[in-house]
Amino acid sequence: MTAHDLQTLLEEVRAGRTGTDEAARRVREAMSAAPFDDLGFARVDTQRHLRQGFPEVVLGLGKTASQIAAIAASIAGRGHSLLVTRATPEAYAAVRAIVPGAVYHEAARAIVASRGETAVGTGTVLVVCAGTSDLPVAEEAAVTAAVMGNTVERLYDVGVAGLHRLLSEHERLRAARVLIVVAGMEGALPSVVAGLVSAPVIAVPTSIGYGASFGGIAALLGMLNSCASGVSVVNIDNGFGAASIASLINHL
Amino acid sequence: MTAHDLQTLLEEVRAGRTGTDEAARRVREAMSAAPFDDLGFARVDTQRHLRQGFPEVVLGLGKTASQIAAIAASIAGRGHSLLVTRATPEAYAAVRAIVPGAVYHEAARAIVASRGETAVGTGTVLVVCAGTSDLPVAEEAAVTAAVMGNTVERLYDVGVAGLHRLLSEHERLRAARVLIVVAGMEGALPSVVAGLVSAPVIAVPTSIGYGASFGGIAALLGMLNSCASGVSVVNIDNGFGAASIASLINHL
Amino acid sequence: MTAHDLQTLLEEVRAGRTGTDEAARRVREAMSAAPFDDLGFARVDTQRHLRQGFPEVVLGLGKTASQIAAIAASIAGRGHSLLVTRATPEAYAAVRAIVPGAVYHEAARAIVASRGETAVGTGTVLVVCAGTSDLPVAEEAAVTAAVMGNTVERLYDVGVAGLHRLLSEHERLRAARVLIVVAGMEGALPSVVAGLVSAPVIAVPTSIGYGASFGGIAALLGMLNSCASGVSVVNIDNGFGAASIASLINHL
Amino acid sequence: MTAHDLQTLLEEVRAGRTGTDEAARRVREAMSAAPFDDLGFARVDTQRHLRQGFPEVVLGLGKTASQIAAIAASIAGRGHSLLVTRATPEAYAAVRAIVPGAVYHEAARAIVASRGETAVGTGTVLVVCAGTSDLPVAEEAAVTAAVMGNTVERLYDVGVAGLHRLLSEHERLRAARVLIVVAGMEGALPSVVAGLVSAPVIAVPTSIGYGASFGGIAALLGMLNSCASGVSVVNIDNGFGAASIASLINHL
Amino acid sequence: MTAHDLQTLLEEVRAGRTGTDEAARRVREAMSAAPFDDLGFARVDTQRHLRQGFPEVVLGLGKTASQIAAIAASIAGRGHSLLVTRATPEAYAAVRAIVPGAVYHEAARAIVASRGETAVGTGTVLVVCAGTSDLPVAEEAAVTAAVMGNTVERLYDVGVAGLHRLLSEHERLRAARVLIVVAGMEGALPSVVAGLVSAPVIAVPTSIGYGASFGGIAALLGMLNSCASGVSVVNIDNGFGAASIASLINHL
Amino acid sequence: MTAHDLQTLLEEVRAGRTGTDEAARRVREAMSAAPFDDLGFARVDTQRHLRQGFPEVVLGLGKTASQIAAIAASIAGRGHSLLVTRATPEAYAAVRAIVPGAVYHEAARAIVASRGETAVGTGTVLVVCAGTSDLPVAEEAAVTAAVMGNTVERLYDVGVAGLHRLLSEHERLRAARVLIVVAGMEGALPSVVAGLVSAPVIAVPTSIGYGASFGGIAALLGMLNSCASGVSVVNIDNGFGAASIASLINHL
Amino acid sequence: MTAHDLQTLLEEVRAGRTGTDEAARRVREAMSAAPFDDLGFARVDTQRHLRQGFPEVVLGLGKTASQIAAIAASIAGRGHSLLVTRATPEAYAAVRAIVPGAVYHEAARAIVASRGETAVGTGTVLVVCAGTSDLPVAEEAAVTAAVMGNTVERLYDVGVAGLHRLLSEHERLRAARVLIVVAGMEGALPSVVAGLVSAPVIAVPTSIGYGASFGGIAALLGMLNSCASGVSVVNIDNGFGAASIASLINHL
Amino acid sequence: MTAHDLQTLLEEVRAGRTGTDEAARRVREAMSAAPFDDLGFARVDTQRHLRQGFPEVVLGLGKTASQIAAIAASIAGRGHSLLVTRATPEAYAAVRAIVPGAVYHEAARAIVASRGETAVGTGTVLVVCAGTSDLPVAEEAAVTAAVMGNTVERLYDVGVAGLHRLLSEHERLRAARVLIVVAGMEGALPSVVAGLVSAPVIAVPTSIGYGASFGGIAALLGMLNSCASGVSVVNIDNGFGAASIASLINHL
Repeated sequence: MTAHDLQTLLEEVRAGRTGTDEAARRVREAMSAAPFDDLGFARVDTQRHLRQGFPEVVLGLGKTASQIAAIAASIAGRGHSLLVTRATPEAYAAVRAIVPGAVYHEAARAIVASRGETAVGTGTVLVVCAGTSDLPVAEEAAVTAAVMGNTVERLYDVGVAGLHRLLSEHERLRAARVLIVVAGMEGALPSVVAGLVSAPVIAVPTSIGYGASFGGIAALLGMLNSCASGVSVVNIDNGFGAASIASLINHL
Repeated sequence: MTAHDLQTLLEEVRAGRTGTDEAARRVREAMSAAPFDDLGFARVDTQRHLRQGFPEVVLGLGKTASQIAAIAASIAGRGHSLLVTRATPEAYAAVRAIVPGAVYHEAARAIVASRGETAVGTGTVLVVCAGTSDLPVAEEAAVTAAVMGNTVERLYDVGVAGLHRLLSEHERLRAARVLIVVAGMEGALPSVVAGLVSAPVIAVPTSIGYGASFGGIAALLGMLNSCASGVSVVNIDNGFGAASIASLINHL
Repeated sequence: MTAHDLQTLLEEVRAGRTGTDEAARRVREAMSAAPFDDLGFARVDTQRHLRQGFPEVVLGLGKTASQIAAIAASIAGRGHSLLVTRATPEAYAAVRAIVPGAVYHEAARAIVASRGETAVGTGTVLVVCAGTSDLPVAEEAAVTAAVMGNTVERLYDVGVAGLHRLLSEHERLRAARVLIVVAGMEGALPSVVAGLVSAPVIAVPTSIGYGASFGGIAALLGMLNSCASGVSVVNIDNGFGAASIASLINHL
Repeated sequence: MTAHDLQTLLEEVRAGRTGTDEAARRVREAMSAAPFDDLGFARVDTQRHLRQGFPEVVLGLGKTASQIAAIAASIAGRGHSLLVTRATPEAYAAVRAIVPGAVYHEAARAIVASRGETAVGTGTVLVVCAGTSDLPVAEEAAVTAAVMGNTVERLYDVGVAGLHRLLSEHERLRAARVLIVVAGMEGALPSVVAGLVSAPVIAVPTSIGYGASFGGIAALLGMLNSCASGVSVVNIDNGFGAASIASLINHL
Repeated sequence: MTAHDLQTLLEEVRAGRTGTDEAARRVREAMSAAPFDDLGFARVDTQRHLRQGFPEVVLGLGKTASQIAAIAASIAGRGHSLLVTRATPEAYAAVRAIVPGAVYHEAARAIVASRGETAVGTGTVLVVCAGTSDLPVAEEAAVTAAVMGNTVERLYDVGVAGLHRLLSEHERLRAARVLIVVAGMEGALPSVVAGLVSAPVIAVPTSIGYGASFGGIAALLGMLNSCASGVSVVNIDNGFGAASIASLINHL
Repeated sequence: MTAHDLQTLLEEVRAGRTGTDEAARRVREAMSAAPFDDLGFARVDTQRHLRQGFPEVVLGLGKTASQIAAIAASIAGRGHSLLVTRATPEAYAAVRAIVPGAVYHEAARAIVASRGETAVGTGTVLVVCAGTSDLPVAEEAAVTAAVMGNTVERLYDVGVAGLHRLLSEHERLRAARVLIVVAGMEGALPSVVAGLVSAPVIAVPTSIGYGASFGGIAALLGMLNSCASGVSVVNIDNGFGAASIASLINHL
Repeated sequence: MTAHDLQTLLEEVRAGRTGTDEAARRVREAMSAAPFDDLGFARVDTQRHLRQGFPEVVLGLGKTASQIAAIAASIAGRGHSLLVTRATPEAYAAVRAIVPGAVYHEAARAIVASRGETAVGTGTVLVVCAGTSDLPVAEEAAVTAAVMGNTVERLYDVGVAGLHRLLSEHERLRAARVLIVVAGMEGALPSVVAGLVSAPVIAVPTSIGYGASFGGIAALLGMLNSCASGVSVVNIDNGFGAASIASLINHL
Repeated sequence: MTAHDLQTLLEEVRAGRTGTDEAARRVREAMSAAPFDDLGFARVDTQRHLRQGFPEVVLGLGKTASQIAAIAASIAGRGHSLLVTRATPEAYAAVRAIVPGAVYHEAARAIVASRGETAVGTGTVLVVCAGTSDLPVAEEAAVTAAVMGNTVERLYDVGVAGLHRLLSEHERLRAARVLIVVAGMEGALPSVVAGLVSAPVIAVPTSIGYGASFGGIAALLGMLNSCASGVSVVNIDNGFGAASIASLINHL
């Protein structure tokens, strides 16, 4: 029973099309289903969508292709949308064999098989990135936000070294309901963007850079110390996490 | 001209009570006021409330009492709400002499003189903290959220070492529209809370701990690496920042 | 002379089947054997089992396959149980040629040739892990604990983002005599588990994660700063070390 | 109802001195008591002794003297043993006013009011420290272990620079059931001790040292990387934590 | 013989007012003076002005007031300009007793006794700072640049959170020959400034901030990883160093 | 319109060869051209040369060969000089297909197609390096400085362990207008050089070294803490950045 | 029995002035004395001078004045030379009351009561330091080396920013048998010195500096990565340690 | 002219076999030879043996095989001993083609072509290592010490987890004139060894370990914080550096 199914059922009850006894029976049945699917090496959370609005998402990193495929089968087999992040082409091959409709977003390194069960959020989620090299992380965020039911726009390569590129898009910045701002190197972009808008900014440091960027630490620290208010931060390269939060906010 | 004044003016226009010429004149006048007040050592942003919904907030850290008082006079003198964070009692004495109605929240180390010009946000901002020692940071968040126009609730000392304390408040957790979760030491509380709710969680690491807590680094890293989705993070001890974001979200 | 041989001998003495002179002679002989086997590049400790209850264990990391095989021959050649951790398939091939009965546990990356000379410990060692990706470390712990003479149970993929998966196994958690809790990312699981049980918890951070996980530092710090009492910590990815301690405790 | 009370009750039941109905009633009553005492700034866990064998212990660090006194009153008022660690003389003055029998261990910086409700553990807990400067941490461990119901012995200033001081106490080392080994600077003592005994070693790094000791990091890393098996580690200066684990093990 | 004296002498030679023999004699005499003044605890470089255009500057940090005074006497006694940075009021009292004309710049924590022997540089050195708290470092830079013979301008509190404050001063930014940009927290200001001008930018991170600012590391890393070209960096809080370089450049 | 074109046009105006109306028209036209070329994944800054004296430079790191080629086409297609740093041979192959005259400097890992539109700077830029292993970074600096219009000299393998190698080149050191000093390991060379000259020194730490060099951190810290004045620092291995600054200075 | 007593005794034996039986008896007696003096909080090593040529030295850091005095009494009471490093004036007052002849070296923060039992080493130990602020560490080294029986010379404030100060002392540098080179900030001096001499250089980083000196880490790393051979390093500010090694070498 | 040649010449002068004029001529001739050989990418120090007792040693790391071969040719071509450390088999192939007698020590990763021009040092250099995995570093030290003219002994795999292995070699430890002690992981071995001997100990941390060993940082910190006196430290894995110092000491 997806969150959408539950909503439908409750509306049927209010409309008198379904009796309360019948509705209660169906909810109990869904609930009494095991709250997770025990695969031995993994316990797939089968009620995540009820608790948090979207089914469990699979982090591909550190899992074998066959482990990923088995988990994907468990999720898709219940009729839920499937999202696998940090997925290699090998993992995709394994998943596609079991979940035929799954699509691979190469730039985002993500496998998606959307069932569209999530209602679309109120406004626009704008994904901004500082440089071309930040693209994989920005795309992970954009693809995640889209599959979670959000209108997504992109604004790429507008780093602070050439402010006019950013300022010329002032309208689009202010039109967004939530912004995901992705940057490596010194990670200054979220601070500048947050000073221009009144919407929440989710900052994503990337591991792009070299030397004293220390794999994204410089950008991470820059974002945590932002002198602009309205900026919160997720892990280095965590486009998925930023999109999850943006989606929660956009669905409020 | 506060954001509220502007809203009122525009509604008067729509209602035909004010002509468009007159309205345009008033907006231009407000805009033509210098966009900042140059005190030499500080440039107070006089239009922050128009851009971001709340006047400039003063970070007391690293400023002398007389600098703080001068900035406070500039802000309060324009009829805006005043919030000074990380304020010492000395700074409060200096401010109170110039802004008579200012109040000092000792636990939160904050000076507040609220004009109530901000509309109240939709839902409840719930401030959760792991231990008694995290209280100053939690109170900074709670006081900030309140002055920014939010209904605030507190849930303190519910760290993960005694889960039943947290689980017994499941209802209050799920009722909140946004959660600010404050924790030091291992910083595990936001991960656990985010697994129980479907609202966004703003995590605030605190510098509470000793030894390998490294002044809050352990908690910060724990939160950045949260295995739960829906968690974004602000700087160590940054209760103010968390509340700013929570308020932005709650006013969407 | 294994610890078991010594025990047997002493029991024979107590039973009068062996004279004290003869027994003393045999012990002296065993003792007068060189306390280590000098291979030039290695000095294999031949009396470790007498001092610490289990023969020397070989850490495969940083040794060549032929070095490992030579050390393995020295240990197994004395009739002791053999355990090689962090072993590559190449190392296994070299060992198997010399120690025919040796088995390779792929998930655990361990070579085992057990002689069963160790008495079985009192209770159950429960190996808990947070996510599927932590499996190699958890398996290293489980295989080590088993070869050291312990009843081992496994409870995998019960991370704190979905607490119900953990709480539903409350009985098994409380039934264990010692717990090994393996987690990467934020490393919060040991804190939560230790709050639910009254047995000692050995926490093992793993290098699983990315970005600000810093190869396991985040998890390590989280565990060292655990707000729950009863948690001690071993090195990142050190499943072997955790199992050694758990076994010592379980044999008390 | 202390763990001891419960044990007594159950033995009365087995002996037929108390009926099962009456016993069940009493247990339910104890259980239905609020599982924590909500002081606003703190939620004192009132059933910790049932779950983990000893009442909640108060970490004095970061709490005001009056907060500590209020929590102490809540614990002692239920008839439980009281232990406050990292307590200043001021905190002690505040506690003593409310809990008259409380004693202050100056070297250990601990406040203790023992009710002796905990059974005494099986063997000896030996607290070993490397240098005179490590004494406060060693004493925190020794006092904690004692109040938790353990026979405690001390072996101080036996650092590895003068091995003969340690080797001359070989008998006492091997006689202990659990060892707590406290060391600052290079933190080598636990590795050497663990090579001499077959009991579990809980290593406690201290912040003693200067320069590249980095407040205990050098000792912490040394202990985590111990080449000896049987060593697990707690946070820097965490004598209390080491003693908690040692006590759990000694009560198995 | 100051650099200015030398220049004057050479011009006299060219003008025929002084013979080459006489000139050579005077230069040799100046050169044969001891190249340093050995005070035992210090060797004052007496020819620094000849090699690098300005006499040796005294870093007050870590020296006693009497050591500073003795060094100051050695420098001023040769008729050179005196600059002591990181000077306490106590050091100033000791210096003033020996070098009567010395002035104390409190905000800059600097003692100055200028002889004006340095020619004035070509253009303007503009000192920009992000926030009011960065003032001591900015003032150290401004005072140093002035005493080294530069026209100095100041532009304070123009951090990136309110870009309009910076953009409104675009003219002054572009008019400078060298810019010193001082910022704490995320340290983004130099990147933004460097994108707006074509002059070299010397970036100075400050230790202003808290939590994950780590005493200026966040700002330092931000500046080292600047995505804008034309930015070089000096040590945290090193206003003096930035001004020295700016002065070298401005005197080219 | 390159900076050179603009200069030419203005001189024509002064000479009366072009009317002011015509000149104004041409400048407006150039300005009204889009200030960046939006390739979707990149926004190429088309007026960088006007603002900062040299066209946008492409950092090859983290970009695909086809992305680099497209950006190169956009830059070269406008008649600007092309510089791609951190370029692989693959990237060069892709670029050469589109920009036929492009040259690959293997030691410097740089692609260059110079149009010579930049005026030559006043003096010499001297590139000094400490060891043979620092050559790639030194060459990146030398090639960059050359293409930006500077007379470049090289002085390689003059590390401080054999001072006579450096001192024997004293003349060349003092003759330079700006110095770029490249060093790995302990990074002491810039301090020693800066003590010998009165020109600005741009220090470039390299990642050369092992063990406690930590990928260049040791050299970076050494340079930031230089006891010599006149040293500013760029990111580890950032030869390009050092040359950009040196060129700005040399063109003053 | 000091090392010197033993030497004397053996020479008497060789000279026939003492019989072998008598000599053996005396050595046995000295040896059978307890190898350490157990003060409870400290075990004073009473045979350190026999094993390592100098009695145990007391590190004052982290010990109370009365603990230091008691240990001093134990050492001096056996007729050994006393050296206490990192001693406060309070500690000195306590020691002087018990060891009347003890002297306090203020700059070195050391208490000394020398018995002159150590033979004087072969050559000169030269203590070199980079700046005036490094003096306390340099003096700790110089005082330690002197009391351990070495001819000590000092060469202070010869940092690399003014090489001529160092080069002018080339003779004294080359005349030393061992060199102790003390430096803070970038720590380059040992590398330069080691390139000029053929004697071993013991490098001592100091915590002098600010910002990115990180309490001596920059200097420490610089010295560990020295491109000159012949440099070994001790802990930050460890003047005592450097002198101990220098003395061992000088007595070979 | 090698140091040995010089010695021979001076002895001929003393013996009257060579006149002082002739001797002075020969020395001048040798001295007037260029003090370095400029290969463009390298300046080979041709008088290193005169200043420091052994010709320049080549660090293979970061140099191409052909660069190494050219430098080797320059050194060997002057009749000096050749030592290349961190050399790959490829580098060896290139060197052997030019320096036919060169030998490759595989375990030590070193190329050696010894001319035996260095006198043999007084005593024995003992190379001790903690574990089998530390062998490459220990061998680099042993091979270096041998080619520099020292009697070398080896004592391998005597880590502190099995103290009896070390204590059984007490005689050999005390017989050495200098000790090089190599250890990874917790790096405790030098502390223990230094407590047993009165000779100087050069400690070499290795990068052996995993997790919190951080590539040798744990061992490095352990050694820097050694509680035993007489220990100085070189860079991680720097077997060559340790041997250079040991050789200098052994030749005193």
